Amino acid sequence: MKKQLLRIAFLFFLYGNLEAQPPRGPFVRSPQVHQDKTVTFEYLAPNAEKVILGGQFLNSSVEMTKGEQGIWRVTVGPVQPDIYPYNFVVDGTSVMDPGNVDYFPNERFKGSILLVPGDEPRMYELRDVPHGSVTYEYYPSIEGSTGSLVVYTPPGYDASPDKSYPVFYLISGTTDTEETFFKVGRTNWILDNLIAEGLAEPMIVVMPNGNTAARIAEQNGGAKPDDPARDTEAAFERMKQLEDDLIKQIIPYVESNYRAIKDRESRAIAGFSRGGGQTLRVAYGNMDTFAWVCTYAASASPKDMDTDFISVSSNPEQTNKLLKLNWVSVGNSDFMYPSTIEYIKYLDEHKIKFQSLITAGGHTWMNVKKYVTESAQLLFK
Amino acid sequence: MKKQLLRIAFLFFLYGNLEAQPPRGPFVRSPQVHQDKTVTFEYLAPNAEKVILGGQFLNSSVEMTKGEQGIWRVTVGPVQPDIYPYNFVVDGTSVMDPGNVDYFPNERFKGSILLVPGDEPRMYELRDVPHGSVTYEYYPSIEGSTGSLVVYTPPGYDASPDKSYPVFYLISGTTDTEETFFKVGRTNWILDNLIAEGLAEPMIVVMPNGNTAARIAEQNGGAKPDDPARDTEAAFERMKQLEDDLIKQIIPYVESNYRAIKDRESRAIAGFSRGGGQTLRVAYGNMDTFAWVCTYAASASPKDMDTDFISVSSNPEQTNKLLKLNWVSVGNSDFMYPSTIEYIKYLDEHKIKFQSLITAGGHTWMNVKKYVTESAQLLFK
Repeated sequence: MKKQLLRIAFLFFLYGNLEAQPPRGPFVRSPQVHQDKTVTFEYLAPNAEKVILGGQFLNSSVEMTKGEQGIWRVTVGPVQPDIYPYNFVVDGTSVMDPGNVDYFPNERFKGSILLVPGDEPRMYELRDVPHGSVTYEYYPSIEGSTGSLVVYTPPGYDASPDKSYPVFYLISGTTDTEETFFKVGRTNWILDNLIAEGLAEPMIVVMPNGNTAARIAEQNGGAKPDDPARDTEAAFERMKQLEDDLIKQIIPYVESNYRAIKDRESRAIAGFSRGGGQTLRVAYGNMDTFAWVCTYAASASPKDMDTDFISVSSNPEQTNKLLKLNWVSVGNSDFMYPSTIEYIKYLDEHKIKFQSLITAGGHTWMNVKKYVTESAQLLFK
Repeated sequence: MKKQLLRIAFLFFLYGNLEAQPPRGPFVRSPQVHQDKTVTFEYLAPNAEKVILGGQFLNSSVEMTKGEQGIWRVTVGPVQPDIYPYNFVVDGTSVMDPGNVDYFPNERFKGSILLVPGDEPRMYELRDVPHGSVTYEYYPSIEGSTGSLVVYTPPGYDASPDKSYPVFYLISGTTDTEETFFKVGRTNWILDNLIAEGLAEPMIVVMPNGNTAARIAEQNGGAKPDDPARDTEAAFERMKQLEDDLIKQIIPYVESNYRAIKDRESRAIAGFSRGGGQTLRVAYGNMDTFAWVCTYAASASPKDMDTDFISVSSNPEQTNKLLKLNWVSVGNSDFMYPSTIEYIKYLDEHKIKFQSLITAGGHTWMNVKKYVTESAQLLFK
């Protein structure tokens, strides 16, 4: 049994890399989105005993049924149009969908992405409009490390060499990478579509990696550090590293290499989850740098507002003059909902002007796409 | 058992998306490359019975050992510096390494990427040199579809608005995507380093997706077509679609949107595996378009040379004048080795000038990185 498994593993591995050969065995198509918005998933596993589909479009995981040639299959739905992470669990082991190119860039879990299109293409779907570009940049980061940024430039950027643009800095969450707002958030298509409809200003969007400490450790040959527990000294240090990177390295890099308008009213910053916490720390700590601030499923505690951010909270008249937008969003099933409501109450009690969007749903990228779509329309106007 | 598995699957799924929470359970670090170039892999699977590591740095798969907290572990090596695909097989199911951000973009299998650094950074490693950029472009493709390109622009490109550059079109293989030469081939870092050392001309590199038929089918709401068996009518049609896309859509798009020098001596084309076959079909069928042609683990049959490419094979004097480079490469353990040797013999017998590189090893991306590194140094000179 052991030898057979080793042989299977090796052959799988070898086979998996025989790129010129047509695949042996049955061809699996997954996912298949049907006209009526039901979705069929297929997974090849002739030896498995149980294969389960998990996904944020389901109320609970569903079992798949083994069919001919060892292909497990299930059809679910109709599914509401959106983009959802999903995975299979095969005899207890979580896997991505091998047949699906679309993946969820992440440091800790591996998932696939399902797109169920709207009858009319939604704001985050590929439409027939002018497209911007998404560029991966390697920049000199803090502590001698090299960082990676994903940068969106709007349609027309390259054709307008005399035009400069405002910049929107967008930070993802714990275990997300600099790719997640692109690959999962579809930020480039959201902006393409908003710009095409005249709903958003043409802007550059800069997406950094929020886990600066891990990159520094890995480039110095060390082990990647564990994510610290929230609200600990280590977590605070982690936040501060991203702030240093953004202020000292990323913004200067962007403003040297892109035609960015270099004033605070042309800089916006937003973030999801841990990225939202980093957003507030950076923005409230650098009020001379950003005039547009948004948090997606994140907030600052009354304690932080009363101490670290006292200059912001104690002078609402100045704060309201400086900030052209202070935007707060969360889903009403999100575990961040209670703390976000507390933050909103704090802002209100301290007469700090804000706008907010509370949606249904939880701590999901389906909500993040809504938050990007809504907040981007308010920037730089 | 069934309910428990469903619950585990759903909790895993839910947990996996609680991006703000520190992970419950033990922190897994994988892979860990040690100073002596041994590598430790870890995989969390408390309920698994057998976990195996497969990778192209191994002679055969190895079993991992279950340790505390359900973390499976193995240390292998020392491993020769290079970049290798790998995966785990968990009770018969192949998975990527959840702890590793680096993945292998692919339509059919899912693998992770291990980098074992050289004592001095190798040509495909991140070095402290000026970096180019890698841009994802969405262009109007054939049959009304929208295609995706990955485009490398060299260091200095943005700062030199009066300078135009030669273009290197680079096509990956069956099941690879437009990302594979970037994420696995590390083409951007190879070019950054070659250019920094004065070994390669600054150039633009354009990486298309070779599976045009699949994209068209999916965008038209149809099911992705199976890969046809080689040398069939369907395979030929598939090749022809990429040729149409390249000549009619991609090249005009690149030459409108990038500062590309618009003459045949400033266009090079290369491909790996199926991409190499597509390269020859495009180049030999469009001798007025490309002057530099390279194949990586691919070839043309004597039959094709005698029929489809007769204008090339029957007039060596003209062919040798037109082609500034005809470069052929393969590994001597590659299953493409016999047909490539046959192709080389054909070229020799027909007095068609060529250069070649035959390496050790098989049909791997370790070899492809060597081929890119060597052939890029010969282009546009």
